[in-house]
Amino acid sequence: MKLLIVGGVAGGASAAARARRLSEEAQIVLFERGPDVSFANCGLPYYVGGEIAEREKLLVVTPERLRTRFKLDVRTRISVEQIDRSAKKLRVRDLSNGREYEEAYDKLILAPGAAPLRLPIPGIDLPGIFTLRNLQDVDRIKQRVDQGVKQVVVVGAGFIGLELVENFVRRGIATTVVELQEQVLPPFDKEMTTPIAEQLAAKGVSVLLGQSAEAFETTADGLMVHLKSGQRLPAQLVILGVGVRPDNKLAVDAGLKVGPRGGIRVNEQLQTSDPDIYAVGDAIEVKDFVMGEPTQVPLAGPANRQGRIAADHVFGHLSRYRGTQGTAIVRVFELTAAMTGASEKTLQRAKRAYRKVYIHPTNHAGYYPGAKAMTLKLLFDPTTGKVLGAQAIGGAGVDKRIDVLAVAIQASMTVYDLEEMELAYSPQYGSAKDPINMAGFVAGGILRGDHPQVDVDAVLSASPGTRAFLVDVRTSQEFAGGHIPGALNIPVDDLRSRLGELPRDRQIAVYCQVGQRGYLATRVLLQSGFNAVNIGGGFKTYKLFF
Amino acid sequence: MKLLIVGGVAGGASAAARARRLSEEAQIVLFERGPDVSFANCGLPYYVGGEIAEREKLLVVTPERLRTRFKLDVRTRISVEQIDRSAKKLRVRDLSNGREYEEAYDKLILAPGAAPLRLPIPGIDLPGIFTLRNLQDVDRIKQRVDQGVKQVVVVGAGFIGLELVENFVRRGIATTVVELQEQVLPPFDKEMTTPIAEQLAAKGVSVLLGQSAEAFETTADGLMVHLKSGQRLPAQLVILGVGVRPDNKLAVDAGLKVGPRGGIRVNEQLQTSDPDIYAVGDAIEVKDFVMGEPTQVPLAGPANRQGRIAADHVFGHLSRYRGTQGTAIVRVFELTAAMTGASEKTLQRAKRAYRKVYIHPTNHAGYYPGAKAMTLKLLFDPTTGKVLGAQAIGGAGVDKRIDVLAVAIQASMTVYDLEEMELAYSPQYGSAKDPINMAGFVAGGILRGDHPQVDVDAVLSASPGTRAFLVDVRTSQEFAGGHIPGALNIPVDDLRSRLGELPRDRQIAVYCQVGQRGYLATRVLLQSGFNAVNIGGGFKTYKLFF
Repeated sequence: MKLLIVGGVAGGASAAARARRLSEEAQIVLFERGPDVSFANCGLPYYVGGEIAEREKLLVVTPERLRTRFKLDVRTRISVEQIDRSAKKLRVRDLSNGREYEEAYDKLILAPGAAPLRLPIPGIDLPGIFTLRNLQDVDRIKQRVDQGVKQVVVVGAGFIGLELVENFVRRGIATTVVELQEQVLPPFDKEMTTPIAEQLAAKGVSVLLGQSAEAFETTADGLMVHLKSGQRLPAQLVILGVGVRPDNKLAVDAGLKVGPRGGIRVNEQLQTSDPDIYAVGDAIEVKDFVMGEPTQVPLAGPANRQGRIAADHVFGHLSRYRGTQGTAIVRVFELTAAMTGASEKTLQRAKRAYRKVYIHPTNHAGYYPGAKAMTLKLLFDPTTGKVLGAQAIGGAGVDKRIDVLAVAIQASMTVYDLEEMELAYSPQYGSAKDPINMAGFVAGGILRGDHPQVDVDAVLSASPGTRAFLVDVRTSQEFAGGHIPGALNIPVDDLRSRLGELPRDRQIAVYCQVGQRGYLATRVLLQSGFNAVNIGGGFKTYKLFF
Repeated sequence: MKLLIVGGVAGGASAAARARRLSEEAQIVLFERGPDVSFANCGLPYYVGGEIAEREKLLVVTPERLRTRFKLDVRTRISVEQIDRSAKKLRVRDLSNGREYEEAYDKLILAPGAAPLRLPIPGIDLPGIFTLRNLQDVDRIKQRVDQGVKQVVVVGAGFIGLELVENFVRRGIATTVVELQEQVLPPFDKEMTTPIAEQLAAKGVSVLLGQSAEAFETTADGLMVHLKSGQRLPAQLVILGVGVRPDNKLAVDAGLKVGPRGGIRVNEQLQTSDPDIYAVGDAIEVKDFVMGEPTQVPLAGPANRQGRIAADHVFGHLSRYRGTQGTAIVRVFELTAAMTGASEKTLQRAKRAYRKVYIHPTNHAGYYPGAKAMTLKLLFDPTTGKVLGAQAIGGAGVDKRIDVLAVAIQASMTVYDLEEMELAYSPQYGSAKDPINMAGFVAGGILRGDHPQVDVDAVLSASPGTRAFLVDVRTSQEFAGGHIPGALNIPVDDLRSRLGELPRDRQIAVYCQVGQRGYLATRVLLQSGFNAVNIGGGFKTYKLFF
């Protein structure tokens, strides 16, 4: 067996190591265009900021280690130019000396990754404008920062963009982030990113939403970024973080099938349209685990698992890739944002029926010091209760809840299962009723009909004539500190004695701070014959929208 | 509907609140023997130590709040003396004035909890010897500590015992813990508690295992604790934390069925042998979710959910309790220990077939600063791969992995599912191959036969004649720093060139530090015709045992 692997980072390196474990005898050649293999892609922003102080920490495995330990024929600085599928060989070029040669294969695994998009706008190639993909990129960015940068503009407020923003602020640089969408972190639903936008502002970051760069030019002081709005931003450093594009040229040239957005098409065994050629990682199209549709999700975890699965199949093991859920997490200063499964906008785009709940719990028992607030949004099927997706934003414990929900999605669990989850509780780690249980209770209450809820965005987008009568059941102090316009304040403890103030010919939408008192109020009203609903997630959810 | 509830803490308070949400009209009376309802049981030790500074933080809900908000008839300082099942009424006594009266019910929920065991030994009732169950207990203990205690003896190294130990050390008290078992934290497997015992010793705690108190006596300086071993321990304060016993007197007197260990027998709807009487919380016998056997597990989370389910059923909702997994967690100084599902000793006792793996990952990417080590033990079915139990010990991230595995157990997932889990990764939170994936890979490797492993305890308990030939594949420096006696050192990178040194007529057991190099070495040897196995979890696991 002669196995060639193109690309030596996450998916390629995983495939190579796995292949060697499966076969001592196989000839395994790993081609990598750059000088490094298996580097810590996700750590690059923190090397710029200095949290990761030593460059060698970013080198997870060296080519030398792969050679000695895994008996791999690792060839760096090699560009793979062409696949000759009929002859089953590659034409490659050694970038260090320009020499070209051919290499035959029995099986081929493509792990070329994805390249940062470069916008086709004037000045895009000026010095000082960078993308971030590998160690060479980060060296260049860090060198410039070390030389002294007063102002940086980051184009794109996605994961990598915001990670870099945090690190530029850490370096004391005045930072502006420009995002085409009307929100930061576009994979999340917009309202869930409100706390992130607030956090960025609090840290002095200028966030320009709904804007884009249309040109760059050199100035005496560095660069000027021209936005479509006409605004101009001076900078000595510009980062483009507007997404990635599958590095599919080799595959396309060889006639392998690719999807509409360029991802290499693979089956569940990660074979391309040529069964002797596998593809893994950021370059491929995968199945969205929840939606069932083809998608492209550049994530390190899936890339690593795909490399392993492709190697398994090369050596005759039964193994299949189940699809990608899109579980992702990012730290933005003191906040953590994480998600798994489908977002609300994805469900809306696909016209798929769903319900949602918002809860605002703390990460652990409130009576123990240091409890941190979080907001958790849960999306689920309105008929079966199956969990479709979740997003959370907050402090400690966000990662745990999203991981728990990621498993729930993998296991096709329902909101009723969330109610019954037995999670670890002592006051430092959780609550007797964990946020996961609470989300299940609230969602289950909707589906069983004993807790009718309405979404705050739906209530407020209703026309004035049909809008529900709003009742704020918080205390008068809370009410005075801010409330939904037009709401009547009746504290929940007074509600039973003040039912006479409420209309019987109109729907009543009650709300409290997070939804819990509103739930009780709804129950009281329903059982007193009113047409009542609770505004899910209460005033805190309202504040995410407005 | 007239619903009486006996006991106002976790299960009882949950049942009462749920019942009111389900019915505005029901008459709901909550009887509580103490002056408080719904207090933070699990927070009591931290009030002694001062981490929870204000006593009122421990009062989750006051009786007054339950009255006004939930329209509950809360009666504290009431002892329920007798259940008259045929007449469907209770005889109760008001402890504040001694007055007795009767109260009729349509449905009754018993949530009496469990009482700390008091050992029947001489001097047990001397002043200065305490158990910890409620706020009155903690007031007494804290008062004594505040008055000045030089030495404390904690009898019992279970969860509450060790939580108190941590808090006594925090208060500067010389602390000794005496435990009958040969390990601390008896619900865990012994080897997993090694780091806890080391941590306790490092914090100056004297840990006496395999010992028990046989008498207490008063001295000029306070108390003297006599151990069975003859050892004597002076103390001014003694805590008994040797377990709890279901508070079942009311149920037994009423002829309700109880299990062999005293837990009140209930069906899946939490009905006792009298269908009008429910029982929830620490007083009941539950089904062990993994083993399917009846068991007693005093945990706050299950108690709360049971209260909810019982109330649901009272009001005609379909709801059932699925059983208890025993998910539990405890912090001991800087360490976290957590578990879910069956322990190895439980599986052994039940003669149930299982396999196990140990891994020693870090909580997040090693290249990012602050990664904390953990040890994760996974127990699974050797045929189906179904996850049966897990235990973890370490720093940050232990709670998350046990919660993920708790869900996996709930969903009847297998080790193959763990391999495919898509968990949130960025360097602050996890790794591209999360510890959960790694545990799945190692376990899957055993079941698929491509990674034959042997347990270190099995290797070393083999008789010298049949013992495998031991090969340590770590570096010579690591070997010099400590190794399994009798092992030959051949670093993994040299293995392929030194195969001639190994016997072909004997099983070879290789090991490294955590198992990963040993895995590669095993693959190299197997494919070179040797009879090789890897010692799961490597030298780090060996050190847990020896």
